[in-house]
Amino acid sequence: MKFIHLGDLHIGKRVNEFSMINDQREILKQIIKVSKSEKVNGIFIAGDIYDKTIPSIEAIELFEDFICKIADLKIPAYIVSGNHDSSERLSTFSKLISLSGIHFSRNYDGKIIPLPLENIDIWLLPFVRPADVRRFFPDIEIGNYQDAIENVVKNLDIDTSRTNILIAHQFVTANGKKPEISDSETSSLGTLDNIDYRIFDNFDYVALGHIHKPQSMGRKEIRYCGSPLKYSFSEVNQNKSITIVEIEDKKIDIKSIPFKPIHEMKEIRGKINNLLKMEKDESYMHITLTDTNVIDAKNKLETIFPNIMKLDFEEYYTNLGEKRDLKTLKEKTIFEHFSDFFEKQTKEKLTNEEKEIVSSILLDIKEAK
Amino acid sequence: MKFIHLGDLHIGKRVNEFSMINDQREILKQIIKVSKSEKVNGIFIAGDIYDKTIPSIEAIELFEDFICKIADLKIPAYIVSGNHDSSERLSTFSKLISLSGIHFSRNYDGKIIPLPLENIDIWLLPFVRPADVRRFFPDIEIGNYQDAIENVVKNLDIDTSRTNILIAHQFVTANGKKPEISDSETSSLGTLDNIDYRIFDNFDYVALGHIHKPQSMGRKEIRYCGSPLKYSFSEVNQNKSITIVEIEDKKIDIKSIPFKPIHEMKEIRGKINNLLKMEKDESYMHITLTDTNVIDAKNKLETIFPNIMKLDFEEYYTNLGEKRDLKTLKEKTIFEHFSDFFEKQTKEKLTNEEKEIVSSILLDIKEAK
Repeated sequence: MKFIHLGDLHIGKRVNEFSMINDQREILKQIIKVSKSEKVNGIFIAGDIYDKTIPSIEAIELFEDFICKIADLKIPAYIVSGNHDSSERLSTFSKLISLSGIHFSRNYDGKIIPLPLENIDIWLLPFVRPADVRRFFPDIEIGNYQDAIENVVKNLDIDTSRTNILIAHQFVTANGKKPEISDSETSSLGTLDNIDYRIFDNFDYVALGHIHKPQSMGRKEIRYCGSPLKYSFSEVNQNKSITIVEIEDKKIDIKSIPFKPIHEMKEIRGKINNLLKMEKDESYMHITLTDTNVIDAKNKLETIFPNIMKLDFEEYYTNLGEKRDLKTLKEKTIFEHFSDFFEKQTKEKLTNEEKEIVSSILLDIKEAK
Repeated sequence: MKFIHLGDLHIGKRVNEFSMINDQREILKQIIKVSKSEKVNGIFIAGDIYDKTIPSIEAIELFEDFICKIADLKIPAYIVSGNHDSSERLSTFSKLISLSGIHFSRNYDGKIIPLPLENIDIWLLPFVRPADVRRFFPDIEIGNYQDAIENVVKNLDIDTSRTNILIAHQFVTANGKKPEISDSETSSLGTLDNIDYRIFDNFDYVALGHIHKPQSMGRKEIRYCGSPLKYSFSEVNQNKSITIVEIEDKKIDIKSIPFKPIHEMKEIRGKINNLLKMEKDESYMHITLTDTNVIDAKNKLETIFPNIMKLDFEEYYTNLGEKRDLKTLKEKTIFEHFSDFFEKQTKEKLTNEEKEIVSSILLDIKEAK
């Protein structure tokens, strides 16, 4: 049987103030297309459906439209909530919705009933924190995520003669080695949420969400599919793709089909005159200018790069390390502050003509007050 | 066929800071019971399911639990959104949920497809404002609610050889006569939202929500069922009940079965010593004290009436009409203000002993500053 493994959709997300909704609409369209062409038997979505616990109506409508199309294709879907979702809101009316083959994880209540599909048992584990597990096992010491998930899994009535698939949204490590993370995750940086992959020994495939770069943890069948889009510039070199899992009894084959996003995400640096000679590019851009004297840079660059998410001036950043003397700062006039700033930005001093312009502007401001 | 007509549940509502959730849970339990005992063929819910467009998780879970029980009983439900609901949020996944016989109105999009049930066509009209209708009929002048709903109804493809039921949430008037309103509605007080009942001539029954007192408008078959609970003291004398509509071809019979709320709602007035002699009463109380000198009244009264929603002092209110001279007010000391206030409240002057107590308290406050 063949499944699509998705996760970290973050529908409704804004990246550097750019709405991702159209990019997400296109990605979901490609998933529908692949579902048909690959004749998949089911879809796993491993959490972070939405970017917020109370998603916008626009986000809800996009996801609903996608899921209804999946239901129309008679493809069952298995969906768990992530740390960005409200488990309760996401699973409202899930009992009634499941009649259509669309299955949402319920709020964790101490037990999980697997969903059978031929010889496969599919287990839906919503994102849980230690406290969510602790209250159902008051006699067991649950100090961290490892304890929590270990206890959750121990309490599953797994029939190992069948093929078992777990869908989960957690921070899984392999012998202490962490997954490669990106800037767009809000995964913890400590070690408290580490969950060792050996906990999942009884599962034939673990469809993970939470980490935005596709990667396996410990063994190839414990896998983060990654987010479908690049949600931060730390992901520019990642390959976002649809993960397809083929399961023959307990034999697992994984392949991936690259997404074709509306907008690529790119980082470039250089002098503005060189950049302005490039071909028009609608990618989401992070541009670093190496020039020392650029006026109105963003407007100029937008004629070639209409979607600039981030514009940096290399000089500005390299000078930030400089020590600042607060006493001197206080004694300076506004004019002196400005000319210092100008010099730092451009590595050149104000010309006499420029000095006159600045003085007259400062005078105007003073009078306006 | 037999239907329960409900509306204005306002699940999650707080009345005078008291949560109604347990009262609502009990009411929904009684509806389930009546659904079974009366062997009803369907349930209409005419809007204002929730009290807020983004309801609390507690409210969502209560309504979900109720609806799942109705679905388990194989009783179809027909639900429209009210002005307190978010039409989009309420109807999320309604297409998939409808497989279970639970039907939510969709966001109005210029047309409505009736839901057939044997020889009956059921029309779900979510609460709409003129602007919601106008954008689908740009060439028609829609200045008010009358124009809007007239246009909505004119565009329905009604087969009058069948029995037609409309479920709606609007402000319906009969030849200019308004429905009797209550303090707990947020219905407009103007005339802009009036919709004359003659618009609904082609419907055999119009199941209305919006107005909290049960009443028919124009003819008995155009009916507000009223809210299931008293949500303001203006409703103390209303009889809240389950409306049961029996439909035989086009003959309509309406009966009602009174709700038995956990808490009644009552208004009483009198002297505190008389009230304290009454039997313990857990009703939601509005108490008006006629005494002139009561210290710690609320705590004392709560020994008999644990659920006081509102406590008034008759003297205080009757004196509010008095003219106040701002100049004199400014010249008075705090002590003089207090003794005036005391006199107004109690109709008695401060005794010398009381004067000493007040003076010493005022001194303490001054020193504390």
